[in-house]
Amino acid sequence: MIYDRVALIGLGLIAGSMAHAMRCAGLAGEIVGTARSADTRGVARDIGLCDRVVETAVEAVQGADLVVLAVPIGAMGAVAEEIGPHLKAGATVTDVGSVKRAVIEAVAPHIPHSVHFIPGHPLAGTEHSGPRSGFASLFENRWCLLVPGAATDPEALARLRALWEGMGAHVDEMDADHHDLVLAVTSHAPHLIAYTMVGVADDLRRVTDTEVIKYSAAGFRDFTRIAASDPTMWRDVFLSNKDATLEILGRFTEELFALQRAIRTGDGEHLFEYFTRTRTIRRGIIEAGQDTDAPDFGRAKPGS
Amino acid sequence: MIYDRVALIGLGLIAGSMAHAMRCAGLAGEIVGTARSADTRGVARDIGLCDRVVETAVEAVQGADLVVLAVPIGAMGAVAEEIGPHLKAGATVTDVGSVKRAVIEAVAPHIPHSVHFIPGHPLAGTEHSGPRSGFASLFENRWCLLVPGAATDPEALARLRALWEGMGAHVDEMDADHHDLVLAVTSHAPHLIAYTMVGVADDLRRVTDTEVIKYSAAGFRDFTRIAASDPTMWRDVFLSNKDATLEILGRFTEELFALQRAIRTGDGEHLFEYFTRTRTIRRGIIEAGQDTDAPDFGRAKPGS
Repeated sequence: MIYDRVALIGLGLIAGSMAHAMRCAGLAGEIVGTARSADTRGVARDIGLCDRVVETAVEAVQGADLVVLAVPIGAMGAVAEEIGPHLKAGATVTDVGSVKRAVIEAVAPHIPHSVHFIPGHPLAGTEHSGPRSGFASLFENRWCLLVPGAATDPEALARLRALWEGMGAHVDEMDADHHDLVLAVTSHAPHLIAYTMVGVADDLRRVTDTEVIKYSAAGFRDFTRIAASDPTMWRDVFLSNKDATLEILGRFTEELFALQRAIRTGDGEHLFEYFTRTRTIRRGIIEAGQDTDAPDFGRAKPGS
Repeated sequence: MIYDRVALIGLGLIAGSMAHAMRCAGLAGEIVGTARSADTRGVARDIGLCDRVVETAVEAVQGADLVVLAVPIGAMGAVAEEIGPHLKAGATVTDVGSVKRAVIEAVAPHIPHSVHFIPGHPLAGTEHSGPRSGFASLFENRWCLLVPGAATDPEALARLRALWEGMGAHVDEMDADHHDLVLAVTSHAPHLIAYTMVGVADDLRRVTDTEVIKYSAAGFRDFTRIAASDPTMWRDVFLSNKDATLEILGRFTEELFALQRAIRTGDGEHLFEYFTRTRTIRRGIIEAGQDTDAPDFGRAKPGS
């Protein structure tokens, strides 16, 4: 057991998966959860997601050794302000937000000096959300990035690291600004692009939605999967990682224009070289164990 | 059995999967294959992909009732010119190219009047290519679009339809221009966008390739899967479906700029509404059976 009592503030995909994973591995003595919505709390009680589901964040953090902020980024500051005075001395507060600089700015001012604040971000997710969407293996073989400050207590950091490793994750440390840039490239810009493409398809009058849906296996399907992610979460991600996301989107547009020009002018060599280069990145991801080499875009290869 | 002898010109993912599928379902008396590359022919012989592997397309089409052009789009015209004089009267020629107008223009002039030319396009694929990449179930529950002309013989069309249905596909008919527009939306533009995003990530000096690869599970991974597709095939697709692809990319850029502006100005409502709308398209694809609802982006949910 790593923490005697863990408080989960917010009971969506990530917190729910943490509850399952902590239980499976016996990492927490007691798991207390809360969510702003009464519906969510009701579902969490019905499925026994936590040992106790309480009405407010203030109740949840009473006596907790670890408090996990798992609410949309835009709500982090208000939650921190609410719980700040009620945190146990020596406790650790962490979060699971996809952006780190904005979360630190919103949360840190409300955390008392006697409490360790160690921002975090597990790089794991699915296109599903809500208290029923979690599962114990979500973090297995995935990365969790921790963003300690210069003054972070090494022991508190080691404990939080052990918790994530206990849930199956690999842990890396990174500073907040670099985190936000890396995530703009690997996650935020790709999500915005997927959302955009799905929106374009929906708008195109001459191609019916039925056609888009029927014929999606030709590539579009993989975009819709990431474009189905939680709208509130993603709105907050883009608004709070504005600069890095806009920078990457600017580079993306530049590159896209170059490829469009190659298509328009019939420059097959440019296209061929570009596509050959991108293939090697894919190979790297498979070798790094972050995806499988199974064909048909990750679906099963029956009969083999 | 639907055809006594089928000739496969080109032995990549699609033709290879057709060979497996036709055998499994007993749809062809004899399957003869050929490929331009001696290596490919050698591998096809080694793994027994066809009943016979021959050196040239001219040999392959001798006495064939069905000839399948399964070469990159840019090579279709030359192959058609080569085989045209050697086709059996009453035979059917089809193709599996991802673009239809350009293939028709390149191939039709070389097909004798005694031969039925019925263009086709199975909407199925993986990111793998080559003679070893095929498997019998590739077309199961996927769509195959046939593009008959006004003068197409109904009986020849019915036979080709029966072949695809025998391999597990659903068949729709469509005219060439509409096909090319639908595919620009559901496949060609998404592929170019995925290629671009992967290229941008690779270029960004401040984020290392190692970081991009390690942290790819946050969304980027799904882009790399489609950006790993065969470079030659995709070069030809973009060059031969230039107008529709550029039109869709133009709309995409417009829409992307609107979302970028929403991010820059902090218009959360615009973003939230957009993301909510794209989520419903995803639901439609799952209901249409073109993907599963399994979480973690199509990967298995262990322990459930």
